[in-house]
Amino acid sequence: MAERPTGLKANKGIELLTWGTPNGVKASIILEELKEAYGKDYAWQGVNIGQNIQKEPWFTKLGPNGRIPVIVDHDQGGFAVMEGLAILTYLTRMYDTDHKFSFSDPLDISRAEQWMAWQHGGLGPMQGQANHFNRFAPERIAYGMQRYTGETERLVGVLNTALEGTDYLVGNKYSIADIASYGWIQALGFTGIEIDDFPNVKKWADRISARPAVQKGAAIPSKSPFTNEAYAQRLKDDKEFAEKEEILKGQIKAAKEKYGYKYSSP
Amino acid sequence: MAERPTGLKANKGIELLTWGTPNGVKASIILEELKEAYGKDYAWQGVNIGQNIQKEPWFTKLGPNGRIPVIVDHDQGGFAVMEGLAILTYLTRMYDTDHKFSFSDPLDISRAEQWMAWQHGGLGPMQGQANHFNRFAPERIAYGMQRYTGETERLVGVLNTALEGTDYLVGNKYSIADIASYGWIQALGFTGIEIDDFPNVKKWADRISARPAVQKGAAIPSKSPFTNEAYAQRLKDDKEFAEKEEILKGQIKAAKEKYGYKYSSP
Repeated sequence: MAERPTGLKANKGIELLTWGTPNGVKASIILEELKEAYGKDYAWQGVNIGQNIQKEPWFTKLGPNGRIPVIVDHDQGGFAVMEGLAILTYLTRMYDTDHKFSFSDPLDISRAEQWMAWQHGGLGPMQGQANHFNRFAPERIAYGMQRYTGETERLVGVLNTALEGTDYLVGNKYSIADIASYGWIQALGFTGIEIDDFPNVKKWADRISARPAVQKGAAIPSKSPFTNEAYAQRLKDDKEFAEKEEILKGQIKAAKEKYGYKYSSP
Repeated sequence: MAERPTGLKANKGIELLTWGTPNGVKASIILEELKEAYGKDYAWQGVNIGQNIQKEPWFTKLGPNGRIPVIVDHDQGGFAVMEGLAILTYLTRMYDTDHKFSFSDPLDISRAEQWMAWQHGGLGPMQGQANHFNRFAPERIAYGMQRYTGETERLVGVLNTALEGTDYLVGNKYSIADIASYGWIQALGFTGIEIDDFPNVKKWADRISARPAVQKGAAIPSKSPFTNEAYAQRLKDDKEFAEKEEILKGQIKAAKEKYGYKYSSP
């Protein structure tokens, strides 16, 4: 059992403050990739967002928005970086010197940035709201359920189109553009969306999941019970859970029908 | 009356496809700044999102997410850039050679990127949802109203703290970090939030509003009736409007009370 963090613990290299969420794993995955590729070591602390540790003054001094993940670069005078997109770009600009997970061509840099921004402003926030209305809100509000589940489906459709005929989002090369969206796509089942409806996205996610560094990064601070694989397994193993999930899916379907939702994606 | 756009119209320089929204003006403001500072000219077309022009195939070929703004750089083989954050960084990396609105120091580059990402993934999407539940949803759903108005207030509070003792977000210099959030802050009144409750943010917005290039950029394709200034003026001039707005504010307040909302920001 890890102690409750109350401040930074490292004094060199990168220190990651994170939790096992679709946003959190972006940071741990790129750090594991940099570790494997360059031997760049890092330390991490689990910041339990259920306990609101990310709202404590020692944390908001580093990440003023009070959200995980945040990194601190002790080799740059304790420079702190908040926001997943900014963490992916900072770490690769500083430490991915051979551009193994990033780009040197200015147009490719922009292409990667566009897909990271697309995730950061679209897929992430909208799927997050879908999870909220489908799972966490104190009441099941049909309007919210269909609005955000529907918008998430539209966004996954955009990704599916972008992955037509290519293995990865930019230059057919695995990069931070892919890492940005991977954690959210891996939680689609939990959101109530079938990844099998988006075959290019499914194959892309499987390709990324096969990487050892991704598996290591996705298990920090602990392996998520909400990945598509874990979710599918639990549906098989746990009859009561499967029944509850069927009820939820029926509620989402009914919510869509109530408001005349129609799937629409290029 | 502009014709309904059906494709690109320029063949050199930057072409902007936009509409007068808090996201749209990011692009027109930086383009006006670059025009004033460097003589960099650009063309634009108004893409009426009420008519769903941004969902037409000629548009989604350029911006696959089907959202404004999108820019096309005809001097780079028709390279298209979607997503506000990526437009701000692309244009300054390529054309702000003296770093008048951007940075050369790697840590400042990251600082600006963090605030742009904060807007792109937080303030923008959440204030957008607040506007949806407060204004556009087919029913007034109290849960959604208080959730997103409250989260927007929290985020504006984060900005207010960041602006304590400094005129601008990064290095006390006006930059793309400020431009990213400006359009949304200028629409706070429309969202149902009093900018006067956030004095540092208010002074910062006034400072930015005073720039001629900002005034020009904010009027493309036409001056928004939803800026804080226009909104305050209309409240004074239009009694019926003011009465309706009072009712809306009462609904937001009641929604907050219903769910025990409590303002919380560092």
